[in-house]
Amino acid sequence: MSNPASFEAMWADLTEVGRSSATAGYRRFALTPEDEQLRAWFAQEADLRGMDLTTDRAGNLWAWQGDPDADGPGIVTGSHLDSVPEGGGFDGPLGVVSGFAALDLLNLQGFKPERPIGVACFGDEEGARFGVACSGSRVLTGALDPDHLRALTDAEGMSYADAMAWAGRAPHLLAADPEALARVGTFVELHVEQGRGLIDLGAPVGVASEIWPHGRYRFTFTGRADHAGTTLMSDRADPMLSYAMTALAANKQARTRDARATFGRLRVQPNGTNAVPSEVTAWLDARAENPAVLDALLSDLRRQASERAVRDGTSVAVHVESRSELVSFDVTLRSRLAAVLGGAPILPTAAGHDAGVLSAAGIPTAMLFVRNPTGISHSPEEFAELGDCAAGVRALADVLRDLAS
Amino acid sequence: MSNPASFEAMWADLTEVGRSSATAGYRRFALTPEDEQLRAWFAQEADLRGMDLTTDRAGNLWAWQGDPDADGPGIVTGSHLDSVPEGGGFDGPLGVVSGFAALDLLNLQGFKPERPIGVACFGDEEGARFGVACSGSRVLTGALDPDHLRALTDAEGMSYADAMAWAGRAPHLLAADPEALARVGTFVELHVEQGRGLIDLGAPVGVASEIWPHGRYRFTFTGRADHAGTTLMSDRADPMLSYAMTALAANKQARTRDARATFGRLRVQPNGTNAVPSEVTAWLDARAENPAVLDALLSDLRRQASERAVRDGTSVAVHVESRSELVSFDVTLRSRLAAVLGGAPILPTAAGHDAGVLSAAGIPTAMLFVRNPTGISHSPEEFAELGDCAAGVRALADVLRDLAS
Repeated sequence: MSNPASFEAMWADLTEVGRSSATAGYRRFALTPEDEQLRAWFAQEADLRGMDLTTDRAGNLWAWQGDPDADGPGIVTGSHLDSVPEGGGFDGPLGVVSGFAALDLLNLQGFKPERPIGVACFGDEEGARFGVACSGSRVLTGALDPDHLRALTDAEGMSYADAMAWAGRAPHLLAADPEALARVGTFVELHVEQGRGLIDLGAPVGVASEIWPHGRYRFTFTGRADHAGTTLMSDRADPMLSYAMTALAANKQARTRDARATFGRLRVQPNGTNAVPSEVTAWLDARAENPAVLDALLSDLRRQASERAVRDGTSVAVHVESRSELVSFDVTLRSRLAAVLGGAPILPTAAGHDAGVLSAAGIPTAMLFVRNPTGISHSPEEFAELGDCAAGVRALADVLRDLAS
Repeated sequence: MSNPASFEAMWADLTEVGRSSATAGYRRFALTPEDEQLRAWFAQEADLRGMDLTTDRAGNLWAWQGDPDADGPGIVTGSHLDSVPEGGGFDGPLGVVSGFAALDLLNLQGFKPERPIGVACFGDEEGARFGVACSGSRVLTGALDPDHLRALTDAEGMSYADAMAWAGRAPHLLAADPEALARVGTFVELHVEQGRGLIDLGAPVGVASEIWPHGRYRFTFTGRADHAGTTLMSDRADPMLSYAMTALAANKQARTRDARATFGRLRVQPNGTNAVPSEVTAWLDARAENPAVLDALLSDLRRQASERAVRDGTSVAVHVESRSELVSFDVTLRSRLAAVLGGAPILPTAAGHDAGVLSAAGIPTAMLFVRNPTGISHSPEEFAELGDCAAGVRALADVLRDLAS
């Protein structure tokens, strides 16, 4: 890229934050010391560029070049800095770093934008700690009730409200922020691809067409704790068996429907080697190309889980923790971006993003994907080649130039 | 019972130690503040009765009435005070409290024993924290290498050696203790029954015939972390699926063989809702009436797990964490106890106990079981009626009188 120093210097600043020396995976969760460090880094990058930093009522950060309140809604890029547990370094940070780097490139090129340009850092996109994804952008747009968010608790039982207070933020001020949202004329999020689409297309950068509907469901299987040695198999009410069958059934359901279904998070009570569990809580992540397929998958799975629970003498309750509908990005905007980029491919994704939340709130929104050479994401192995990252920065700069002219 | 005050006062002292107010379950793990509190209680009870307190090199506590070094090996009763996670209050403490209460009863009756009588409190019987059951009695008898125990770590990564140091005990002194063991002429452990045998027999107290062989096996299923939305089902290597099939297979194997197999403890990495797991670690507790059945069960299960792992693109490794062989209690002794108790029933158990460890070390050993009205154990619902507990104290006193005369 034209100014590799800016991209690489920012990347180096972030590399060690929240990274496990044992696994090289990241643990960057909302409202933790790591999160504070990342937000401070964002503020510093804004300051270095003479940009105005604002924090909206949902806790998202905005760095503005130009004044959207005086000069009308701006062009905004950006993403998030938090991670899943043991995640990779690209999911999120690539979009924020590329945003600043694209601005640097435009400035080097002497470009004078006619509209304000912003870089956004959305809070708690992954929802790793409190279980609800995109909570920053969803509170911002009014899609998530702040009361609901404040009451959520992490694995240690700490509420979101208490975690906010820990971070020096006033829990009672958490709210939708239509004024902050009104400053966003167009939003373009750059993100590492989380599949193998661009590999197959042979392209370093692509444009998103839509985001699949996505649900997170908490299955609580309840049985009875018993001694693992002395209790006859026929006298047990073992919720682990009900869960195990449900996990296998979810996989089959997803394969049959060309959808996705994953049980990646579990909590077992009491979790003792020599005790039949009293309760197994399992979180299902499910996505499909349209809401009807997703609903059918969940409905069939719920029935299978209930039938097995009857056999095991256990019970199962299913709670919908979050659900996002199909997002079709602005067709005019995505075609314009693809044209600016010389005919970049347009492809769908099954991953949720803050861009989807802003699109659902009626803001013209687009996404750029940067090729992922393995398709692996949410893992320390997540990666993008430096050359492809540079192509991403150039593409983002071209798009911002086009939109801000 | 003749002196209900002593039993009930001791019971009341212990009731709140390590109990969760939310679940009413106990969390009394080795080398924790709760453990220290329970050991202090034991020392105080010994002191109240003018008994000599000793701690052996394996960390077990002994309260002696009379001097086994001067007067020859004594008659010992007792059990343990630690619990499984969210365990009940009877498994362990009932044996210790009944031991002291039986001594009180004998003293009230004016009995003058001709041999020393001891009450033992074995450390870390459940192995809830470091994963190895009966570590106190097994180090004592030489069945467990102290180096192995010192190196074990708990869920937070703290080693047994460091936990010993925390509790003010010198890790390098942990060792087998043949001198302490030589003081035990006969050992009789009273324990709440952990099944429904005595209900069916209509008896408040029974005598143990044997303990089934028992193994704890750690299954590590390794796959690859991936994004739960974007990764095609066919591109995954999901260890949760390999685990789930293995959990169902274990249940079928145990049912077919009239054995026990339980997966009650799990650790999932990274344990994120939107990440395919990279690793699932699952602990199998398996028991059977003889070693051949247990070996066949494990061998078949290992094969099934490996075959499924191949299908899933994962791998599985099985580590034997502990294994105890069939224990047949001393036939002469158990017949004598049954006769003293007026023809009490004799029945086997699938639960491991310190009595099994002492028996395997060649000490004439027996066990008394007290009826459990639900059969439930390792659960806050574990229970015994006060009348049955009193019958247990009387039976233990009768047995001690007979053996110490």
